[in-house]
Amino acid sequence: MTKKVQPKILPGFMELLPQDQLLFNHMVDTIRGVYEEFGFMPLDTPVIEYADVLLAKAGGETEKQIYRFNKGDNDLALRFDLTVPLARYVALHYNDLTFPFKRYQMGKVYRGERPQHGRYREFYQCDIDVIGNASIPLTYDAEMPAIIYEIFKRLDFGPFVIRYNNRKILNGFFASLELTDMVSDVLRIIDKLDKIGLDNVKEELVNMGISQDKIDKILSFIQIKGTNQEILTKLMELAIDDENYRLGVEELKTVTDMIADFNLDSASYQIDLTIARGLDYYTGTVYETNLVNYPSLGSICSGGRYDNLTGFYTNEELPGIGISIGLTRLFSQLKEAGLIKASKKSLIDVLVVPMDDNDLSYTLRVADMLRQNNLKVDIYYGNKGMKQKMKYANHIGVNYVIIIGSDEIQKEMVSLKNMITFEQENVLLTDLVSKLTS
Amino acid sequence: MTKKVQPKILPGFMELLPQDQLLFNHMVDTIRGVYEEFGFMPLDTPVIEYADVLLAKAGGETEKQIYRFNKGDNDLALRFDLTVPLARYVALHYNDLTFPFKRYQMGKVYRGERPQHGRYREFYQCDIDVIGNASIPLTYDAEMPAIIYEIFKRLDFGPFVIRYNNRKILNGFFASLELTDMVSDVLRIIDKLDKIGLDNVKEELVNMGISQDKIDKILSFIQIKGTNQEILTKLMELAIDDENYRLGVEELKTVTDMIADFNLDSASYQIDLTIARGLDYYTGTVYETNLVNYPSLGSICSGGRYDNLTGFYTNEELPGIGISIGLTRLFSQLKEAGLIKASKKSLIDVLVVPMDDNDLSYTLRVADMLRQNNLKVDIYYGNKGMKQKMKYANHIGVNYVIIIGSDEIQKEMVSLKNMITFEQENVLLTDLVSKLTS
Repeated sequence: MTKKVQPKILPGFMELLPQDQLLFNHMVDTIRGVYEEFGFMPLDTPVIEYADVLLAKAGGETEKQIYRFNKGDNDLALRFDLTVPLARYVALHYNDLTFPFKRYQMGKVYRGERPQHGRYREFYQCDIDVIGNASIPLTYDAEMPAIIYEIFKRLDFGPFVIRYNNRKILNGFFASLELTDMVSDVLRIIDKLDKIGLDNVKEELVNMGISQDKIDKILSFIQIKGTNQEILTKLMELAIDDENYRLGVEELKTVTDMIADFNLDSASYQIDLTIARGLDYYTGTVYETNLVNYPSLGSICSGGRYDNLTGFYTNEELPGIGISIGLTRLFSQLKEAGLIKASKKSLIDVLVVPMDDNDLSYTLRVADMLRQNNLKVDIYYGNKGMKQKMKYANHIGVNYVIIIGSDEIQKEMVSLKNMITFEQENVLLTDLVSKLTS
Repeated sequence: MTKKVQPKILPGFMELLPQDQLLFNHMVDTIRGVYEEFGFMPLDTPVIEYADVLLAKAGGETEKQIYRFNKGDNDLALRFDLTVPLARYVALHYNDLTFPFKRYQMGKVYRGERPQHGRYREFYQCDIDVIGNASIPLTYDAEMPAIIYEIFKRLDFGPFVIRYNNRKILNGFFASLELTDMVSDVLRIIDKLDKIGLDNVKEELVNMGISQDKIDKILSFIQIKGTNQEILTKLMELAIDDENYRLGVEELKTVTDMIADFNLDSASYQIDLTIARGLDYYTGTVYETNLVNYPSLGSICSGGRYDNLTGFYTNEELPGIGISIGLTRLFSQLKEAGLIKASKKSLIDVLVVPMDDNDLSYTLRVADMLRQNNLKVDIYYGNKGMKQKMKYANHIGVNYVIIIGSDEIQKEMVSLKNMITFEQENVLLTDLVSKLTS
């Protein structure tokens, strides 16, 4: 007997049992389906890249978290997101691409952070981006919420709201307060508003040495609420004398008007002036998405517009806009919240159980007929007892079991068992497909 | 201007342009579709595992090729196939699984070998395995060719033949020649028959010190040809006095008889006594698959039966049978052989081109209607010239372009351009779906 190695996996890596894997894949397929319906093309890039290429832009935190190692003479790293590889891809293949370049990519990324509750070291990101050559129309800023809307409507986890803002408004507003040097820090504190509350935000702003007068202005600004039209009106009434601000308000108004054309439920998109997203990356519209009944999950789909994707690789000006879903974490959170439940809808439609493996031709004829009608059919081979066969049927989660004995073969029929109602009936072969697909 | 980093990827890593990515994904989806239709459940395991777990079984070559590195105190490695992670998964989750456990897994694996022509360091494997608890019926040995058959029939790369054998026959035959100690080496030489030819095989066997008499027996054995029934008859007539041999011939006969029930074209499966596959892994039926018109591609789908999957992790006896397709290499070879051609069938069905972005509601209504009928619809936003719009339509490869101007809006119609025939016609909105889906 060989010496045994203990089978185990690393903490921070998600691995699912088959029934959960089905639910996860259902989410993947739903997201992919919407991305494709909206005209995005698939992209796949290597998981391993040259470290200096992946880290062209990265700063301290990313460098600390990255999986980086040498192989031969090469300094390599595992991708930590899908945006940097996209930038590298567009820069490398620039001459072979037609713009706007619309791609979706769904793959694993790696961050070697200390695994905490709900944090993963290996996780799926599901991204779309539209990259323009020199410019891309604002229409895409309005289309992104339509795509998010379609995804979460289909995923059916209850009401959700897409909150959006425009970074130019924030930048312009803070410039008008002569706080431009502090924008990053102030935005980072504002970003924590949901988590730490108004009083703590106020205190942190005081600690930064910002005057009470300006803090009041900041707080009253980020607390502008109302319908989208009311917020836009208030923003215009503020009449802040800053070019960036004026442009941002104009963009936000245009995008808001356009979203209406996309026929979204009006409760599902809401301007929120506290949304800042990444500190130096986004330059226009930004998005976050929350489940109304589960605010603690944080944003489940985020993104925004940026002025130049490939600045670290080329001199081309390639602005873009994109959204991202961190699927591994989302799945684990939704499962914990009880929002993902094993449905009676399985991947496999039918389990066919021959009573005797020595006479399979009729069984195989039945299976082949069902498969040709796009049904997924498993066959239980081997002369085990009926109890074990039914246990297997329950395990793979089929709704129907077809039992075939010599009697059924002789009469050109099957015995069909409904695994939900437990009803069992004899069905003629000629009626079987319509019975199962009706 | 920031200092630029040259965008590049590592040699041995495949990255495709969008149209090729579509063709690659079409192969992925076809293979996945067949796997699911035959009742296999999806599985996904981490790319990074503990090195000692992944290397529990591995020997010299694997260890040299593996991507292995430290992160913190952990000795880690990237998976180099999907079989070892499957074994680890089954051992780890044994109590939560129901057997037979049928899973498919399609994912990237990593081998740091020196990249040669057609060899990749990162490549997709598309595997299925059926794992039994203590035993699994021979019926699965006959089902594997049926699955291979269905995949390559759908992929449509021309005629193919599934060649199969039984390792017990080889082991028994060599035992009868008292060459048991040399089986591995002899099989390795026989495995090269297609590549190096009969004379070189003969010479290598002489160099091993095998007597002329035995070499003649070996060569006449591996040259047994004919129909499957003829080969089986000859094997029985040989009447070699070895228990393994008798059992292997019996299994091969049973499997051959059963395959007939699966309704495969009889030219597509063929017993081939030279097939040995892995040296110490497979213990029963083994498979290789070749494209008849492209023998130089080698085997495009291989696999077989093994006695115990998890021997390095647990004391359970878990026999299994599986097949694997190395998709990255296969795609690259097929492309080079001209067998994969950009088809006129694109992922995206229709490109909608509004003449004026300021009046999008009609355009979005049209797109929404088409999407609700399962069409994939891209919209070209931005007031660019028609030439640029048509260039984009060609780039994403759509068959239809819908043009919407003020005239079309007023008359509740669209201008529909067929990108293959170049015909253009006006179609009423009420007729559009049937026109596009007929």
